[in-house]
Amino acid sequence: MIVKDANILSFKNMNVSEGMDIYIEDGEITRIAKGITSVYPGEDIVDGKGMYVIPGLTNNHSHTAMTLLRGVAEDVSTADWFNKHVWIYEQSLTPRDVYVGTLLGAAEMLLSGVTAVADHYFAMDQAFAAYERSGMRANLAWAVFGLGEGSEEQFSKAMEFTGEFKGKNSRITLSLGPHSPYLCPDDFLKRVVKKSEELDLPMHIHVSETSGQVEEMLKTRGLTPIQVLERTGVLRKGTILAHAYWATDDDLKLIASRGAGVAHCAKTYMKFGDINTFLPRALDAGVNVALGSDGSASNNTINIFETARDAAFLAKCAARDAESGKIEQILPLMTNGSVIGLDNYGEVEEGAPADLVLINPSTPNMLPGYSIFADILYSLNEKNVDTVIVDGRVAVRKGQLENFSIDELREEALGIAKRLTSTSADKPMQQY
Amino acid sequence: MIVKDANILSFKNMNVSEGMDIYIEDGEITRIAKGITSVYPGEDIVDGKGMYVIPGLTNNHSHTAMTLLRGVAEDVSTADWFNKHVWIYEQSLTPRDVYVGTLLGAAEMLLSGVTAVADHYFAMDQAFAAYERSGMRANLAWAVFGLGEGSEEQFSKAMEFTGEFKGKNSRITLSLGPHSPYLCPDDFLKRVVKKSEELDLPMHIHVSETSGQVEEMLKTRGLTPIQVLERTGVLRKGTILAHAYWATDDDLKLIASRGAGVAHCAKTYMKFGDINTFLPRALDAGVNVALGSDGSASNNTINIFETARDAAFLAKCAARDAESGKIEQILPLMTNGSVIGLDNYGEVEEGAPADLVLINPSTPNMLPGYSIFADILYSLNEKNVDTVIVDGRVAVRKGQLENFSIDELREEALGIAKRLTSTSADKPMQQY
Repeated sequence: MIVKDANILSFKNMNVSEGMDIYIEDGEITRIAKGITSVYPGEDIVDGKGMYVIPGLTNNHSHTAMTLLRGVAEDVSTADWFNKHVWIYEQSLTPRDVYVGTLLGAAEMLLSGVTAVADHYFAMDQAFAAYERSGMRANLAWAVFGLGEGSEEQFSKAMEFTGEFKGKNSRITLSLGPHSPYLCPDDFLKRVVKKSEELDLPMHIHVSETSGQVEEMLKTRGLTPIQVLERTGVLRKGTILAHAYWATDDDLKLIASRGAGVAHCAKTYMKFGDINTFLPRALDAGVNVALGSDGSASNNTINIFETARDAAFLAKCAARDAESGKIEQILPLMTNGSVIGLDNYGEVEEGAPADLVLINPSTPNMLPGYSIFADILYSLNEKNVDTVIVDGRVAVRKGQLENFSIDELREEALGIAKRLTSTSADKPMQQY
Repeated sequence: MIVKDANILSFKNMNVSEGMDIYIEDGEITRIAKGITSVYPGEDIVDGKGMYVIPGLTNNHSHTAMTLLRGVAEDVSTADWFNKHVWIYEQSLTPRDVYVGTLLGAAEMLLSGVTAVADHYFAMDQAFAAYERSGMRANLAWAVFGLGEGSEEQFSKAMEFTGEFKGKNSRITLSLGPHSPYLCPDDFLKRVVKKSEELDLPMHIHVSETSGQVEEMLKTRGLTPIQVLERTGVLRKGTILAHAYWATDDDLKLIASRGAGVAHCAKTYMKFGDINTFLPRALDAGVNVALGSDGSASNNTINIFETARDAAFLAKCAARDAESGKIEQILPLMTNGSVIGLDNYGEVEEGAPADLVLINPSTPNMLPGYSIFADILYSLNEKNVDTVIVDGRVAVRKGQLENFSIDELREEALGIAKRLTSTSADKPMQQY
């Protein structure tokens, strides 16, 4: 496969290499030069003329199947969001629903340039099938709780899942998914860490998502949630920390020294009115930050371009400083693959995985194009996402999905939404 | 013209009327019912099946031609933004540039569902021609300063413009455009007010855009900028106040009592890190608020759906409260036509102007559609804007412009950008 005559952007060096051909073999970029010609008949040639090529975007924290709950609870506090609304529907989701919701979410991600996702949810065998079909990359963590009825059974299921699915598809990796230090006692976390070492699988966990969580743990245990993760061995290279948004400055130093990655979900925080200078502080502390969407039940979209724009605005608003959250700081976060364990990711170069997004800048919102970097962060919309390549295969061409169609999913998704609403009739949907 | 079988949304009542036909004659909605059939051969019939219809969006404060400066100054303070960057290019804009930049901006607005704009800039005869060609509605104010070299000449030009263009096109109305109380002494403002009465034209003015402006005027004159507008007679029904973002609570009461409208430009404030609870306070005070984009040199897009989402997030973040900036408060601001003097606007009903946007919700980001109201505010992207009708004529069909093409503008816009950069060679472009 060849991408012909495209302008390659480097977010690391903030420069453009114009009119390059990109040769792709076995899912890898094997050559970048001008004037590469096709070597066999029928080779897939993508015309990149006038387009900008960037690496595929990574979504480092998602509950993708919650796409099916988009819009069930709006303009409410985090506590009300879950307790009064979301759990009512979530508990009624079936494994088949997880398949449909995940595939629908994969469609949304691919169409907006996301090539790899870290998904933390239930029934991950179903999610596995959905990602397999979609053609995108995923790292899957089956969420487990260390408290509550059925937690042992859930833990066993998650372990069975890892046994059955590890190594089954080269695009799909696994993590262990302890929910959080609030819902997992220390002994349980240590047990997960031991399994993580035995199975050679990383971990993906929620931590310090709200200020209340941090205050509560400081009050009851005299420790920050990050310190609890440190004590139990969870805080290590390879671990994905979802949020860590209310980490203290000392916490941030600790995270950086241990090499854990953080998924920063800016749209979620803004939607809940949670404003905090996390991002500039984390970057200053040397934390490995990437972006996450969280589930679309809380923030409505799983679009990383949008999350990046929100991350810039959130940084500026929290610091009351237009110079916070700059373009050159934010853009590399979008294509950071190291947090979910993708090697050699985030630059379009020889030897890198062939996960690419072709951006068409020829729309009114991107003209006259003084700075493609500014335009990507502050002006781009989904119409500009022309082609998405994952693992050397075209997943989106001219803005349309290649591997599956939404049409077949739409009716089923509408049916699921209807069922969830009707089976929860005693708990009426929120009215606007 | 008929829009067939569409679902009409009311943002006033937050309800949906399903499967309705909308009959349009002479730019007006004359009948809404089920089963309306065409009365003459070749009538334009828009298939609305599965779509949602809302009134056209209004952009109540724009410097549309600044589209040509999109991306010249990023991540800098408001003072640096203008003094170190924007003025260097802006002073080199020719009348022809204003035509090209305005038409390019009109394209961006139409494609994102904006049917009417209040544009405050220079060379408005050129802007007039651009809006005439585009098919959208506009209210044009030729910006005038009461200070500085050439201000008398500019004032004369602006007056000539109103004389020549008033009433020339029923879609395009005029305002007088004194820049601001900072750049217009009281006597000059009073002179504009007198002209406004003589010519029966409203006014469009910047005020209280930054906290510094308010502090400075309080220090030097003991008055808020809003109080200055009150004293000089500018603060009245029909006047568009751009921003008023740092108005005090007393100012807000005064604005409400005088009936002036405010254009709230949330994306601009977020990009500059200016966080403030203006919106909930203004709505509580009864101020007539609508949304504005400002120029895309400052906030990069002139998309009102995006501005509305930012307005919700800004309200939530400033109040640190997820319940601030609710869907039912924000959505009506998007289609408020009263601030720029459009009568009977903002509801799809018989007797209203036929300015309509058809939203296609059948994309992954809008499924499964529990609440179309939530989906419009928090999930929609430009791909969902299917058809845009202005004054009873289709301006956008299936996401494509009907009246003009971007292709013919693109090359010229790129050339202008190149010229602006090269003629400002001693003041190099910002580097990222």
